[in-house]
Amino acid sequence: MKRERKREIWDFEHELPEGGGGGQKLILGLDGGATNTICICMPVIPFTLNHSPPVYARAVAGCSNHNSVGETAARETLEQVMAEALSKSRCSRSAVRAVCLAVAGVNHPTDQQRILDWLSDIFPNDVEYFVENDAVAALASGTMGKLHGCVLIAGTGTIAYGYTEDGREARASGAGPILGDWGSGYGIAAKALTAVIRAYDGRGSETMLTNTILHELQLSSPDELIGWTYADPSWARIATLVPIVVSCAEVGDQVANDILLHAVQELASSVKAVVHRLGLCGKDGKDTFPLVMVGNVLEASSGWDIGKEVISCIAKDFPGTHLVRPKVEPAVGAALLAWNYLIEQYQHELSGVGYD
Amino acid sequence: MKRERKREIWDFEHELPEGGGGGQKLILGLDGGATNTICICMPVIPFTLNHSPPVYARAVAGCSNHNSVGETAARETLEQVMAEALSKSRCSRSAVRAVCLAVAGVNHPTDQQRILDWLSDIFPNDVEYFVENDAVAALASGTMGKLHGCVLIAGTGTIAYGYTEDGREARASGAGPILGDWGSGYGIAAKALTAVIRAYDGRGSETMLTNTILHELQLSSPDELIGWTYADPSWARIATLVPIVVSCAEVGDQVANDILLHAVQELASSVKAVVHRLGLCGKDGKDTFPLVMVGNVLEASSGWDIGKEVISCIAKDFPGTHLVRPKVEPAVGAALLAWNYLIEQYQHELSGVGYD
Repeated sequence: MKRERKREIWDFEHELPEGGGGGQKLILGLDGGATNTICICMPVIPFTLNHSPPVYARAVAGCSNHNSVGETAARETLEQVMAEALSKSRCSRSAVRAVCLAVAGVNHPTDQQRILDWLSDIFPNDVEYFVENDAVAALASGTMGKLHGCVLIAGTGTIAYGYTEDGREARASGAGPILGDWGSGYGIAAKALTAVIRAYDGRGSETMLTNTILHELQLSSPDELIGWTYADPSWARIATLVPIVVSCAEVGDQVANDILLHAVQELASSVKAVVHRLGLCGKDGKDTFPLVMVGNVLEASSGWDIGKEVISCIAKDFPGTHLVRPKVEPAVGAALLAWNYLIEQYQHELSGVGYD
Repeated sequence: MKRERKREIWDFEHELPEGGGGGQKLILGLDGGATNTICICMPVIPFTLNHSPPVYARAVAGCSNHNSVGETAARETLEQVMAEALSKSRCSRSAVRAVCLAVAGVNHPTDQQRILDWLSDIFPNDVEYFVENDAVAALASGTMGKLHGCVLIAGTGTIAYGYTEDGREARASGAGPILGDWGSGYGIAAKALTAVIRAYDGRGSETMLTNTILHELQLSSPDELIGWTYADPSWARIATLVPIVVSCAEVGDQVANDILLHAVQELASSVKAVVHRLGLCGKDGKDTFPLVMVGNVLEASSGWDIGKEVISCIAKDFPGTHLVRPKVEPAVGAALLAWNYLIEQYQHELSGVGYD
């Protein structure tokens, strides 16, 4: 059954002309967050960093965080999305030179090794693999592949990740909903749902969130929120309520406002912890470093702008914070990471210095 | 496959003599919390409330909260545990006069109706059914079946539930881990795990919880806690860490201490909300009412005693709070509820007044 499925995934390769891809070499860049997984296909051809890197094809699939959907589903999603991107590029796996897979849920060398083992089952022997947390690709999307500075992601999940020029790295948050990612979209929405329950119980202030959320979910009573919440374990489904929290805060609801203020503090504290540990701000705390911000929780809004509040909170401590809004998406950032590594490797080969 | 299983569950009935149970009528009392489900079998014979009610048999199974384990598994567990209790009593289903099923996750009339429909598929037509939240059975276990006063459960989950003498009811909490049951065993343990992650990130104070929890779980780094946490979605598994939090607080760890203090506030506020809404404390706030306390989070401890702190916090607002530690378990409380109803019904029949 599973083999059947696998064969199906790569069926398109039989329809390609011999040596599918006409000799073109490719890099696959993958970005897997708590909601979507995106795979892009980048040709190995020269380009200048002032322009957008060339992208042959792009494919989108669901969540591939093994902590959220389980390992089997995560792998299937990753394989599916890579096959789709290659199929759209009219290239087979033999054209792939490198794969950079940046997925949420990679928290430990054992997570990395498991995915590396599995990738080497799929691709030919001479492919280079890079497996990273999705935050690394998000950072690279803002710095065009250079690992320096800090990135803050806040979508369904949240994480802060940083690198120094000399290769040290640190992270904060990214531990998922049970372990206190309160600045995430999920965290904000879960707090809003909790506020509705508390108001109903008589344990918390009345809030506009009650009617707005019940109306949105077409429920008639806060009691029914309990069944709704546990009917589906997807983190992304809960996080879709964030815009409601923002809209209630914008029209002056105090409970919603407090939830957003708390999220801002949490997000800023994750970044501050990383900057501190890596010393990105220099000894006097004033050095300049890029802060890449990614994810719909941080996207500019005309009313209650979470991203703007986070930046202003961080800049109070670190005036050298240089905000970067990436011009390319994290999946392209992942491909750029692999690209930079290949270039570096090539330069070493040219100079005759071993690189392993 | 499912029918096969079902036949198996009730196989013992064929081995009983004709009219299994020798004409004895029975009541089944079930208590289903976030960790265990307990079913007891009580004969319909007179007894005085000063003595423990007679219990023929007792069976234990896993969690039967449909919000936690899903509906199919919940039903299977409930059927299994009832069959086991009957089998141990050497009685068949035809001996059952009433079933009181008190399970966590019954939050709405639709939850109740679903279970009632399913029960009537299992038992003969003339059985009386009662489906309640598990908190109702816990209250009845402290008041010997009389629904009056308030109960606070704090085990893996937490809920406060109250009844007035004239039949009004109210609840607070019992909304599960996503919806802010911070006083539960799960809530306490999740906060402790979060504290370890925050300390490791540099976002929170150092705490003894780090080494104690890592040692208990045989992990080498806080990074690995993330994988451990999401590897198994069971709420009860997380909640087993509560004794570690208590022991760290007892030797003076500030972070653990703060977590327990917060849990005390949360548990007390749930009770206060119920008492307020029902007016159990009377107009001057000084009326006496029973407060039944159940669950291992509230069990007396020689060191940091969560239950004692909760009571003292509630008694400040409501000096008439009369603490009751039940002498029988909630499953017996469930059976007593059904018993009281049968007695009441019989009295009405005797007096010639219709009772439907």
